[in-house]
Amino acid sequence: MFQLSSHEGFASPLLELKQALRLLPINKLNLFQFVFEREREREMEVEKIGVTADAHPMTGGDGQYSYTKNSYYQRVGINASKEMVSEEISKKLDIKHISSTSYPFRIADLGCSVGPNTFFAVQNIIEAVELKYQTEGLSSCILEFQVFFNDHVSNDFNTLFGSLPADRRYFMAGVPGSFYGRLFPEGSLDFVHSSYALQWLSKVPKEVTDKSSPVYNKGKVHYTSASKEVIEAYSTQFAKDMGTFLSARATELVSGGLMVLILPGLPNRIPHSESTAGMLFDLLGSCLMDMAKIGLTDEAKVDSFNFPFYMASPQELEDLVERNGLFSIERLEQVINVTRNTGALTEQSCSMHLRAALQGIIKEHFGSENIDELFDRFSEKLGRSSYLLNADYTKGTQLFIVLKRKMTD
Amino acid sequence: MFQLSSHEGFASPLLELKQALRLLPINKLNLFQFVFEREREREMEVEKIGVTADAHPMTGGDGQYSYTKNSYYQRVGINASKEMVSEEISKKLDIKHISSTSYPFRIADLGCSVGPNTFFAVQNIIEAVELKYQTEGLSSCILEFQVFFNDHVSNDFNTLFGSLPADRRYFMAGVPGSFYGRLFPEGSLDFVHSSYALQWLSKVPKEVTDKSSPVYNKGKVHYTSASKEVIEAYSTQFAKDMGTFLSARATELVSGGLMVLILPGLPNRIPHSESTAGMLFDLLGSCLMDMAKIGLTDEAKVDSFNFPFYMASPQELEDLVERNGLFSIERLEQVINVTRNTGALTEQSCSMHLRAALQGIIKEHFGSENIDELFDRFSEKLGRSSYLLNADYTKGTQLFIVLKRKMTD
Repeated sequence: MFQLSSHEGFASPLLELKQALRLLPINKLNLFQFVFEREREREMEVEKIGVTADAHPMTGGDGQYSYTKNSYYQRVGINASKEMVSEEISKKLDIKHISSTSYPFRIADLGCSVGPNTFFAVQNIIEAVELKYQTEGLSSCILEFQVFFNDHVSNDFNTLFGSLPADRRYFMAGVPGSFYGRLFPEGSLDFVHSSYALQWLSKVPKEVTDKSSPVYNKGKVHYTSASKEVIEAYSTQFAKDMGTFLSARATELVSGGLMVLILPGLPNRIPHSESTAGMLFDLLGSCLMDMAKIGLTDEAKVDSFNFPFYMASPQELEDLVERNGLFSIERLEQVINVTRNTGALTEQSCSMHLRAALQGIIKEHFGSENIDELFDRFSEKLGRSSYLLNADYTKGTQLFIVLKRKMTD
Repeated sequence: MFQLSSHEGFASPLLELKQALRLLPINKLNLFQFVFEREREREMEVEKIGVTADAHPMTGGDGQYSYTKNSYYQRVGINASKEMVSEEISKKLDIKHISSTSYPFRIADLGCSVGPNTFFAVQNIIEAVELKYQTEGLSSCILEFQVFFNDHVSNDFNTLFGSLPADRRYFMAGVPGSFYGRLFPEGSLDFVHSSYALQWLSKVPKEVTDKSSPVYNKGKVHYTSASKEVIEAYSTQFAKDMGTFLSARATELVSGGLMVLILPGLPNRIPHSESTAGMLFDLLGSCLMDMAKIGLTDEAKVDSFNFPFYMASPQELEDLVERNGLFSIERLEQVINVTRNTGALTEQSCSMHLRAALQGIIKEHFGSENIDELFDRFSEKLGRSSYLLNADYTKGTQLFIVLKRKMTD
């Protein structure tokens, strides 16, 4: 099935992938796991619900995708940022100002999915804020928290609401809607958190799917190994989305309010073509093209399909925050997750994670009939490049950024 | 099947029903329709979802229960209180005080179901508040609204979120949980609305299902025609629930904040045994007993089943608000809905409405296998008492009460 091409002159995604793979010492895909953690969480829950509601246990036959089996990496992601979030709250939250102007303490988690990761993240924030109150001698204030869990309207809020921790010490509400727009009243939030959500663009840049455009991204499903112009179209979309996001949050946050954003990115000066996650997108794209060649799908369909997924560099993010002008950057860090691969991550499990994360968007465009075939092919191709799962580091990073809403008075 | 018994000495629910029916000129069940409007809305949506998700169009075979066919009476209920809500906001909302202490204007609808009625109610409140701002010369304030839609965790919030009006001019959030307890932070609401929700008790009074208790409600599914002690157990539970409700809302509402409660009730001095809705509960109970007698269900199962549904009198409600002490009563009215029966309400449609409202709770106790049989029997019994649908007035009323949170300073 999968053969890395040896025709040097053949400018296919496969060749570019091959070159990229050879050039790179790539590790156990930790980053990649984090990139998709939220999406996997969502998809897994959807499958779980499907089985329960349908009462046909064999439907889908995807028992291997059980949530229990797939929640470990998600927890690792939360833990990696947990300490940093606590530290920033301890150092940077202007609790005296906030407590004098705002009551209760309101927190929003944007892109919360169906849980449980959002609950861990929120609990961590609350504990850090309470500690801060104590150390500032404000513990006599009876502090109430209100937490807003946000995700798209299509998110399964019923599942989220059904799994709320029984022992939570906060009031809660679910807020459906895109965070690329206003979600909350003016000055009504004290703290915003968003983890692994902002890498999803509001949409695929229009021109890359427009046949008549010079930026048409033919034969590819992502910008990873595409032309400079395609990459630019994606980065322009990201800049636009991030601008909208920052402006909306600047209105919603109180003066001095903090915002923690965690998203997958690429270190400065690493070209997009070397991103590990990007290469996996390309590998998936090449499987789709293989399937088109034997008539299992349509080549034009692959041409018109692109993942609305972007990985920014720290510099890019910094520039966008500065251009927006309404926040100060309190911290901007790249976090390479150093979890050791204990051998549990195989091409099978990698494929499974990817499938859980992406099958929704793929089904929407290609229909559901070829999903098994696609991911079987992907596993096989990945198996022939198994060093992908065993190298020493990932070309990719987790960006951790803490912003403070500038004072408006 | 259904024969009204002529044995005067036979103290069965049937006899009591018969006596009550003979005594009463009863009309087209308008009240009854309102009583169940929210529950019907919820059930209808559940069925709609079921059909969509299941993709077996014949499953359940309940096409006749379509939401479209059953939403007229719900709208009538909303319209009946619409004018009164607007009037109260215009007269009683202390907008100057509220706008100086609270921003944005926060509204909660408690027991919202899945829509669309909650959207109409909320829209009406917002328009009235905006008008009040204008007439008070405050229209230059940019006023933002945040609306909290509350219902039980088991409510279908996905459907609610999916059907939000696209042109709404408010921020929104869904809040799952029982309103017989705290749902919101202290002083975080300006206006509370609850329509056709408070008649549902937090639970059936324990003693009426306890075989060893002298208050055991044997052979009945409601207190309507039961002993004084059973009625007392229900009214005690209602008093307890209402106390909890008022205390929670008093904490959550700002000083001067308004609360509109609409619930089915009984006029002062009308005995519970004469309630139209109650008699329909009894009719349903008698069908269950008939079924137990021929072995279709178990008599002990009927004995242990009771609807946690209570209809208070205006006096009772007034006493409870005064006992709580945290609200002033701004208005308390009984509204008899005067919609004419155009002949559309038949025993079939009445049975259908009742089924939509109650089948969830009945299935939970009795299982789903006998639901068709039960409601077929109910239709037939009702058919033999068709004057129920054509008399001149309903023994029952809609209670409309407006409370204002007393100033705490």
